[in-house]
Amino acid sequence: MAKRRIGIWLIGARGGVATTTTVGLVALKKGLIGEAGLVSELPQFQRLQPTAWADFVVGGHEIRQVALADEAMRLATNNRILDPSVINRCKSELARIDPRICLGTLHNTGSTIAGLADKGVPRQESPGEAVERLRGDLAEFARAERIEHVVVVNVASTEPPADAASLPETWAELRPLLQKPRKCPLPASSLYAVAALEEGCSYINFTPSLGSAPAAIDQLARLRNTRHMGCDGKTGETLLKSVLAPMFARRNLPVMSWVGHNIFGNLDGKVLADPLNKQAKVASKDRLLGKILDCQPQTHVSIEYIKSLGDWKTAWDHIHFTGFLGTPMTMQFIWQGCDSVLAAPLVLDLVRFADLARRRGQTGRLTFLASFFKSPYGVEEHRFDRQYQMLEDWARDH
Amino acid sequence: MAKRRIGIWLIGARGGVATTTTVGLVALKKGLIGEAGLVSELPQFQRLQPTAWADFVVGGHEIRQVALADEAMRLATNNRILDPSVINRCKSELARIDPRICLGTLHNTGSTIAGLADKGVPRQESPGEAVERLRGDLAEFARAERIEHVVVVNVASTEPPADAASLPETWAELRPLLQKPRKCPLPASSLYAVAALEEGCSYINFTPSLGSAPAAIDQLARLRNTRHMGCDGKTGETLLKSVLAPMFARRNLPVMSWVGHNIFGNLDGKVLADPLNKQAKVASKDRLLGKILDCQPQTHVSIEYIKSLGDWKTAWDHIHFTGFLGTPMTMQFIWQGCDSVLAAPLVLDLVRFADLARRRGQTGRLTFLASFFKSPYGVEEHRFDRQYQMLEDWARDH
Amino acid sequence: MAKRRIGIWLIGARGGVATTTTVGLVALKKGLIGEAGLVSELPQFQRLQPTAWADFVVGGHEIRQVALADEAMRLATNNRILDPSVINRCKSELARIDPRICLGTLHNTGSTIAGLADKGVPRQESPGEAVERLRGDLAEFARAERIEHVVVVNVASTEPPADAASLPETWAELRPLLQKPRKCPLPASSLYAVAALEEGCSYINFTPSLGSAPAAIDQLARLRNTRHMGCDGKTGETLLKSVLAPMFARRNLPVMSWVGHNIFGNLDGKVLADPLNKQAKVASKDRLLGKILDCQPQTHVSIEYIKSLGDWKTAWDHIHFTGFLGTPMTMQFIWQGCDSVLAAPLVLDLVRFADLARRRGQTGRLTFLASFFKSPYGVEEHRFDRQYQMLEDWARDH
Amino acid sequence: MAKRRIGIWLIGARGGVATTTTVGLVALKKGLIGEAGLVSELPQFQRLQPTAWADFVVGGHEIRQVALADEAMRLATNNRILDPSVINRCKSELARIDPRICLGTLHNTGSTIAGLADKGVPRQESPGEAVERLRGDLAEFARAERIEHVVVVNVASTEPPADAASLPETWAELRPLLQKPRKCPLPASSLYAVAALEEGCSYINFTPSLGSAPAAIDQLARLRNTRHMGCDGKTGETLLKSVLAPMFARRNLPVMSWVGHNIFGNLDGKVLADPLNKQAKVASKDRLLGKILDCQPQTHVSIEYIKSLGDWKTAWDHIHFTGFLGTPMTMQFIWQGCDSVLAAPLVLDLVRFADLARRRGQTGRLTFLASFFKSPYGVEEHRFDRQYQMLEDWARDH
Repeated sequence: MAKRRIGIWLIGARGGVATTTTVGLVALKKGLIGEAGLVSELPQFQRLQPTAWADFVVGGHEIRQVALADEAMRLATNNRILDPSVINRCKSELARIDPRICLGTLHNTGSTIAGLADKGVPRQESPGEAVERLRGDLAEFARAERIEHVVVVNVASTEPPADAASLPETWAELRPLLQKPRKCPLPASSLYAVAALEEGCSYINFTPSLGSAPAAIDQLARLRNTRHMGCDGKTGETLLKSVLAPMFARRNLPVMSWVGHNIFGNLDGKVLADPLNKQAKVASKDRLLGKILDCQPQTHVSIEYIKSLGDWKTAWDHIHFTGFLGTPMTMQFIWQGCDSVLAAPLVLDLVRFADLARRRGQTGRLTFLASFFKSPYGVEEHRFDRQYQMLEDWARDH
Repeated sequence: MAKRRIGIWLIGARGGVATTTTVGLVALKKGLIGEAGLVSELPQFQRLQPTAWADFVVGGHEIRQVALADEAMRLATNNRILDPSVINRCKSELARIDPRICLGTLHNTGSTIAGLADKGVPRQESPGEAVERLRGDLAEFARAERIEHVVVVNVASTEPPADAASLPETWAELRPLLQKPRKCPLPASSLYAVAALEEGCSYINFTPSLGSAPAAIDQLARLRNTRHMGCDGKTGETLLKSVLAPMFARRNLPVMSWVGHNIFGNLDGKVLADPLNKQAKVASKDRLLGKILDCQPQTHVSIEYIKSLGDWKTAWDHIHFTGFLGTPMTMQFIWQGCDSVLAAPLVLDLVRFADLARRRGQTGRLTFLASFFKSPYGVEEHRFDRQYQMLEDWARDH
Repeated sequence: MAKRRIGIWLIGARGGVATTTTVGLVALKKGLIGEAGLVSELPQFQRLQPTAWADFVVGGHEIRQVALADEAMRLATNNRILDPSVINRCKSELARIDPRICLGTLHNTGSTIAGLADKGVPRQESPGEAVERLRGDLAEFARAERIEHVVVVNVASTEPPADAASLPETWAELRPLLQKPRKCPLPASSLYAVAALEEGCSYINFTPSLGSAPAAIDQLARLRNTRHMGCDGKTGETLLKSVLAPMFARRNLPVMSWVGHNIFGNLDGKVLADPLNKQAKVASKDRLLGKILDCQPQTHVSIEYIKSLGDWKTAWDHIHFTGFLGTPMTMQFIWQGCDSVLAAPLVLDLVRFADLARRRGQTGRLTFLASFFKSPYGVEEHRFDRQYQMLEDWARDH
Repeated sequence: MAKRRIGIWLIGARGGVATTTTVGLVALKKGLIGEAGLVSELPQFQRLQPTAWADFVVGGHEIRQVALADEAMRLATNNRILDPSVINRCKSELARIDPRICLGTLHNTGSTIAGLADKGVPRQESPGEAVERLRGDLAEFARAERIEHVVVVNVASTEPPADAASLPETWAELRPLLQKPRKCPLPASSLYAVAALEEGCSYINFTPSLGSAPAAIDQLARLRNTRHMGCDGKTGETLLKSVLAPMFARRNLPVMSWVGHNIFGNLDGKVLADPLNKQAKVASKDRLLGKILDCQPQTHVSIEYIKSLGDWKTAWDHIHFTGFLGTPMTMQFIWQGCDSVLAAPLVLDLVRFADLARRRGQTGRLTFLASFFKSPYGVEEHRFDRQYQMLEDWARDH
């Protein structure tokens, strides 16, 4: 009997996160690296017997043309985030993945993202035509690679905020809009979601873009007996907020102000330098503090593109809180992490957990994955420890 | 019917923590300050109806002679940690507490602490005689102030590590040693504990000194139907360790090294400048990392007495961890908190919770208070969120 | 013979910097404080025999109504930056200064500043009328207090950038514009400068506002045999830039990026929250790096109003530089200083030095004072050590 | 006519600093890297026409056996401080240098350093015999490579403090001691200095070890018409102290305390973990503050060996100072630099400058090089800008 194979379909397949994910997966298959950063490798999740790394196959959509190995080498030499010798030993596998990456769509992604795109990317098709084309790509991937199930993960650059308020609540009402380009406010991330779900794939939105957030798309997932989750991977500064803010709440130390400054220089940073795209991101980073803390502190979040830093995201947070007797005190932290390297293992974890949820027959929003996201769909709990408990409870109930 | 009154008996009653606790309590009674920093004021604990601030009475033991109001004013002017106008409005109450503070004991406290003591402090009595004298002070306090129950809290300077290994396991065996000064390795903190428990008081060890840690003293608590807990209040850097370390473990990010440097300039800092006294403190601060993280990182903790900082303890922690693909990353934090002001509300909380446990009939170690301590007696769980859950579970089961 | 008395005329006389300056001067007169922060008290400048503190008299212009002692107490209690007992002992002197503070002008100060102003502040007068009124206030102050010389110092909130490019080069051409409100782009800071110089006073612009920067106003100073200097006091983050950047240049360590984030919560911060007013400030803070470093690093400066910080300005700077073999390295600094308290002694120093320059007969721009300013008039040297050398050379040549 | 060739003779030739220096020199010769970090490449020094990189030849003494290319690759992979592709392209040149590295001496280097040494290192010879052997190595190097002048640079690990007080003041008195092993307190670094100077070489002590500090050895340099300088390269935290401390002095901001914590994990760090060796280093780092600041702040310097950091030295400095009105303020900095990469270009600069001084006929201590050292021989000036001025003045007078 043929082995069960699982597909990982990356939207933004040649970007920093996707390239790091792909190199990492190949390196895991070859035993070149350890399991640091992979939540699914912890004992409490290993007992669920997630799919082995050897059984994953990568494909994806992308709007830029560049060989995966070249992009990886660029990450290695510009940012010193990957070991060049690891990349060299993965080159032939990366070359085999390149032809499986198809042209994506630019619908409502904004001018900054569109400006990065190759000429070949279709710009005239209607949303409905785009969805059909993307579905075809997914179907062909599954067929050619003999794949049992595909998990689609959006790791493309952040889109400008979409006007989601005007969207209809049901799939029956939303579907016809796809044929009317002018009236369809769905951005690319949502078209990928629709294509994935229609095709029976699982869909994960690792970005703050709209993706599968609309109620009508959630309904589609349930109609098609499949599943989805998002949004915006919680990798660095926001992870720390969700870990630290509960401490202040539990010790009854009112936070007066929480200022966070983020600087980094990768492509995502460049896209976020566009104020429209930045808006979605900042909102996602800022939202949770008010929900965790009973008080509403003054908050400020900035994200700046500083080219020299490359993929090294540095965050400085300054937390001003009131102690006993009204004495003001301060905590500051400085986080120096590699954005793509923090995100990549979570992408692999999410694919594994989505696949496990499928085996268990779960459909709709996978709320037990809340700890992975800055703005988890359908979850009001933002404290990291409680979110993580949801994951462990889910694993225990398996 | 007379109102129920609860006594707070502070060991080290004129030190920074005790003075801040006492000023804070008086200010709370007078409505001069808010409830910031007080855990027991959170809604989930208010429903247990803890004793009102108005119903607490303060007394204590001390080895130095100085008026409480003067010590408080010194904290206000040297360190800018208390508001002088608050102290001025509390002066008459502080003056009423001064005569309730009795001379303590110096048994096995080391030469640095003994060097700070007034001439009047008895230095010739046997441990057994000291215990009898201390018991008398507690009994007289309860009688004179018509107090229903006294909670004794040790907030004195850290003693040198005691040789606890040689202690007998039962109270029956330990008791006779109190009459043999040469053979009795118990330090002052344990003599206070014995006196408190023999007298039926609750005992809380807020310091890393030996206190009620020995099994024989725990047995004494149960024999006398009373209770105790310790040790070493978790106020700053170690609190953050117990909040942050679980994040690294849960995200499978192996910590390679965790370095913590602490600088501060209060009297406790001066005592800790003595290498013997420092030893107990550093061990208490360093212990928990290995227990929370599966890996054993290289750790380094330093505490230095920097006079100019006064009560402002600044901690710089540098955490070096391994990300995906073996990429090393760094988190640093800087904590600028007022040591006494962080500790004082926890002392008040512990007194309230110990009193609630008494009402519920709990005896022995109060393990549900683990979240308050760096080295909680009888508790192996060091993750702050899980420890806090123990407190919330206890409150819910009330 | 009557003693020589020198006037200090503060524009923005009830603001944070002015209040701190005034309280500080009174406290110096009374011997309540030491000389920390006062450059003119260093031995190399004391030999010039600057005017004694006892011989200074304070007056000023202001647009808000509030008693100096109340403003000082607000700084003491809200920000813990002044010692309340010092203020209490200065109260009667502060009350004597209050009536010497006259209503200022709002010409071209922008809506944020205008919004803070009292109703009584004249809003209909032409620039020329304003200048005449302000001159009258200065003349009356000198007469009433029997003052030999008045030094006017602008410490008012930052104005929006003025359109200085269109200004004529000579005083003869500029003067008539004062009578034509519509055509006169001069902001309040420049009207104060004109009034001061016409009246024979020295003028110091401690802010980034236009002040005496225009060539025509510099000419006016020389025509009237008086002197001026500016602009923008170098108190914190920018001081550090001018100290640290030369090190990178001298060690041939190319700076790739220099990011500076400033957060604070005083009135100046509130005014700077208006993007128009902020523009002038950021430019002044950012300018010098390119001039000190041969390379042109990517720079980013942000200033955010964070209310809880009050007068405590916290700056975080992240400097990313290239070492040997192309290895990228990082320096970060965190500056926690009290904005008004850093500025106030420099105001007193500048008054003393301007007065010494007058005794020496210097007119026009006082370039030897470059080390005090972020953007020194007529000086291209931005390295702090070289600027300071100019001050020491001037003192030696005395 | 044959080209003039200059020898660089490195004591500790396979250590981190020497390996980085050697790789850097080879990479400069091949045009693989830029000139970042090299002071002598700045325009004001290029006009002196220092020897071109192509004309330098490397040799040295060492007590460990390891191929240079292997050591370099270890730095690249363990610490990510060198680019592996650069090393690969330098391999054949490095292999040619390996045989020019001779066995050093262990006289009075302490047990930690001795424990790192290969068995082959002579341990029985008298100091005089060692000097003769080392001189022979230098002479053979100069002969075999047809070298005009050799500059010997000590970059070996720090020795324990030597008892220099008992040393005679003149070379005539010191020389006979070399024959009496028991009575000769000179450590290895001084024997290398004697050998170098006797042989007419220039000698640079880049470490805090004794080296050429004794008056008698300085006299030897003048007797032999040669030159020397030291000690302890000023690369990171101490460089910053010498840059920042003058600012506090010039602004009359009294520093109350200056705490510096250094963590790093290279071989030097391991040697410094030995308290005896650390003592010399800490004294050298701590000395200058009192000399720059008029006040004597409380200082604390710690150096800890944290293995995971490798060559990345992280320093956290906390500076507590008094502002106007007695207000305490704080500056902190975090320096994340690569120790060897910061030191290596300075070694190359010092060799070039020592060679230029030789061409000019300078003998004895090269005090104009003070800016390169933590404890410059014969120089009381510790302010970096003034020291640098000495270098620029020297260059201008050329």
